Amino acid sequence: MAQALAGFRPARRTPPETVPLAGALDRVPAVPVAAPEALPGFARSTVDGYAVRAADTYGVSDGLPGYLDVTGAVRMGAEPDVAVRPGTAVSMPTGGMLPPGADAVVMVEYTQEAMPGTIEVVRPVAPGEGVVRADEDAAPGADLVPAGRPLRAQDLGMLAAAGVTAVAVHARPRVTILSTGDEVVPPGTAALRPGQVRDATSVALAALVAGAGGDPVPCGIIPDDADRLEAALRAALDGSDLVVISAGSSVGARDETAAAVRRLGPPGIWCHGLAIRPGKPTLLAECDGVPIIGLPGNPRSALVVFRLVGLPLVRLIGGCTAPPAEPAVRARLARDVASAAGRLDVVQVRVCDGVASPVFGLSALLSVLTAADGYLIVPEEATGLDAGTDVDVTLYR
Amino acid sequence: MAQALAGFRPARRTPPETVPLAGALDRVPAVPVAAPEALPGFARSTVDGYAVRAADTYGVSDGLPGYLDVTGAVRMGAEPDVAVRPGTAVSMPTGGMLPPGADAVVMVEYTQEAMPGTIEVVRPVAPGEGVVRADEDAAPGADLVPAGRPLRAQDLGMLAAAGVTAVAVHARPRVTILSTGDEVVPPGTAALRPGQVRDATSVALAALVAGAGGDPVPCGIIPDDADRLEAALRAALDGSDLVVISAGSSVGARDETAAAVRRLGPPGIWCHGLAIRPGKPTLLAECDGVPIIGLPGNPRSALVVFRLVGLPLVRLIGGCTAPPAEPAVRARLARDVASAAGRLDVVQVRVCDGVASPVFGLSALLSVLTAADGYLIVPEEATGLDAGTDVDVTLYR
Repeated sequence: MAQALAGFRPARRTPPETVPLAGALDRVPAVPVAAPEALPGFARSTVDGYAVRAADTYGVSDGLPGYLDVTGAVRMGAEPDVAVRPGTAVSMPTGGMLPPGADAVVMVEYTQEAMPGTIEVVRPVAPGEGVVRADEDAAPGADLVPAGRPLRAQDLGMLAAAGVTAVAVHARPRVTILSTGDEVVPPGTAALRPGQVRDATSVALAALVAGAGGDPVPCGIIPDDADRLEAALRAALDGSDLVVISAGSSVGARDETAAAVRRLGPPGIWCHGLAIRPGKPTLLAECDGVPIIGLPGNPRSALVVFRLVGLPLVRLIGGCTAPPAEPAVRARLARDVASAAGRLDVVQVRVCDGVASPVFGLSALLSVLTAADGYLIVPEEATGLDAGTDVDVTLYR
Repeated sequence: MAQALAGFRPARRTPPETVPLAGALDRVPAVPVAAPEALPGFARSTVDGYAVRAADTYGVSDGLPGYLDVTGAVRMGAEPDVAVRPGTAVSMPTGGMLPPGADAVVMVEYTQEAMPGTIEVVRPVAPGEGVVRADEDAAPGADLVPAGRPLRAQDLGMLAAAGVTAVAVHARPRVTILSTGDEVVPPGTAALRPGQVRDATSVALAALVAGAGGDPVPCGIIPDDADRLEAALRAALDGSDLVVISAGSSVGARDETAAAVRRLGPPGIWCHGLAIRPGKPTLLAECDGVPIIGLPGNPRSALVVFRLVGLPLVRLIGGCTAPPAEPAVRARLARDVASAAGRLDVVQVRVCDGVASPVFGLSALLSVLTAADGYLIVPEEATGLDAGTDVDVTLYR
C-alpha cells in the first residue's frame, strides 16, 4: 500500500495564474514572493514617548533625572518636521516615524513634564530601543512567502504591507468526477425505483477536492456499459488535471473500469488493488499525462480511499509541497481492533474524553462515516491494536 | 482574560437560509436534518454471490456441500424478477436488491458451479449475512446530520443519498472590518510617503473571517477623527452581525475608539483591555445587538487577538456549537519563555522534528507571524515555561 502510493507520483502540475490578494487565501504560490522594498520602510516608534539620542539618557535615574527640551511632535503618517539634536526630544506616537538625529524612543511612562517644554527622563535607553528598524520586518528582496505553501491569513497581511496586491499561484487542479453504475441515480431523484440508490459519492468527493484546493467538475453518472465508460473517460482526459471515477461495486463492474482505462492509452494502469480496508479495489493509472483514480463503488470506501490517496494527489498537482496539518488528537482505544498483517486498516472512531471508540459497521454504510469524529490507521505491519493502546486519531473537519 | 471572554456571549445569531447541497460544505445546519425515508431503502447484497435462504446452507462444508438450483440473476438497479424458494438460489451482484424469499447472500468464493444451473455451497450462512438491511444506514426520521456542526464531506454524501438536495443553514455572519489611522493607506498604494504604512490587517482579518464561515465586508480606512470614526461605526452597525475595528496603536487613538463606541449606544463596552500579550488594548462591546471588537493597531497583535477572541465569536453568531478541531502538535520547547503571572501570553513558534522554537520579535513585526508554524499559549497562572517542557502548539493552516 505505502509502496504503491509512494511510487505513484505523476509529473503533472497546474500552470501559474495571477489572482488578487483578497482571493488568495489557501492558494499555493508558484514562486516565492520577494519584498519589493524594505518593510516597514522607515524607522518607527514601538511606544508612545519621546524620540531622543540614547546618549543623552545614559546614567539617568529616578534620583538623578536627565532634562531634555521638547522641540516638536511627530504626527502619525507624516514625515517629522523637526530633528532631534543633543539635549532635545521630540514627542512620538506609537508607530510614528523616527525623526532625524534620534536613535531611540523613551516610553512616556519613564518621563514627566518638568516645566512647559521640558521633560525629565528617569530611565536610560540604549540605541535602537523603542524602535523598529526600517528593514526589520523585511529586507528588500527577502522572501515574504515561500512557494508551495498555501497562503495563510498572516501571509496575505504581509503581502498587503509590501504592496503586493496580486499573487502568482498554481491554478486549481481541475478534478473531473465520474460516477458509474446502473443502479445509481442523481441525488435530486425524488422517488427511487426498487434497487436504485442516489449518487452520494460525487457531492462528497467534490467537497473533498474543493477543500484541498482543487476545482471539482462533477460529470454525472455513467451506466455500466464498456463503450460509454470508455467514451466518458476519454472525454474527461481533455481538460482535466485528475480524473476520479467511482467504479461499480461488483467484480464485473470493477473489471470493466480497468479494461476501459487500459484502452485509453499509455502508460496506463499503475496498480489495481491496494492493501487497504476499506478500499481494496482502488485503481491508480495515468493516461496521456492525466492521473486517474478508480475508487470502490460504495460511497464509504470511496471517501476513505480518496482522503488517503486522492487528496495528496490533488495537492501535489496543485503545486502544494507543504500541505497544511490535519487536526489530530491522541486518544486511548476503547476496545480491540482486529487487522490482517500486510493490510492497512482505516478505522472510524468517535472521540470523547480522550477515548477513541471504533464505529463498526459494514463498509457499505455511509452512516459509519457520518457518525465518526475521525479515523485511526492500523499500519500494515500490525495485526490489530489492543484496547487501551494510545492511538493518533485524525479528526474530520 | 478567560473570565472576560467567557462572560462576553452576545445573543446574536444569524437567521437560517436554504443553500443547495453542492454549496453546503462547512455550512452550519440550523436544525437537524432527518431522513425522509429508510436508507438504503431496500435490503442489498454486500458481496458478489448468491441470494439464498440461510436454512438451506446449514451444515454444509467442503466435504458435504449443499446443492441449490440457480433460478435467476438480479441486475443492478432493477427489481428482482424472481423469488428465492427452498432449494433455489439467485445470482447477486454487490449492491443488488435482495429477492423476495432470500434472507442471506453466500459469497461467490464459497460456491462453485456443480453443473449448468446448479451450484455447490461449501460454507453455511446465517440469516442477514452478506446483506445490508433496508434501514441499516438510516431509519426513517433519524437524524442524518446534527444542527450546529459544520457539514463535512461525508455529511453531504449522506444527505445526497437521502435525496436531500438543499439544507437550511445559518446565514454567514456579516463581519464589517474597519481600519483606522492617519498613517494607514490601502495596500494598492504603490509609493508610500514617509511615515505611511499599508493596511495589512484588513485583508488578513477578512481571510480569517472567511475561514471561520463568516462573510467579511472590508470597509476601508478611517482617519483618526472622532466624528468620522463614530459615523463609520454607526453605519457599520446597520447590516452587520459583528463589527471589527483595528484601532490606532497610540494611546490617544485607542481612547478615541473607546469614546466613539461609548457614544454609539447601550449596552456599550464590555471590557477594554485584556490580560493578553500581544493584544492588551483589545476592546469588547455590544451596541444595538451588534457585537464590536476593537483590535490593537499593529497587525500582528490584531491577528493574534482576533484568532483567539474574534473567530469563536464569528462561529457563535453563525450558529456553530461544535467548531472543527484546530490542527495541533505536541512539541518540546527549545528555550525558556518568560511570562508574567495573570497574563496570557501567545508565543509564536516554529516546529521542526518535535521541537518548538519561539520566534521572538517586536509585536510590531508581522514577519514573526509569517515565520511561525503555529503558536503556544502560556496560561495566566504560569510565570513562564522552561526549556524542555512539552507544549501543545496550535498549527496555522
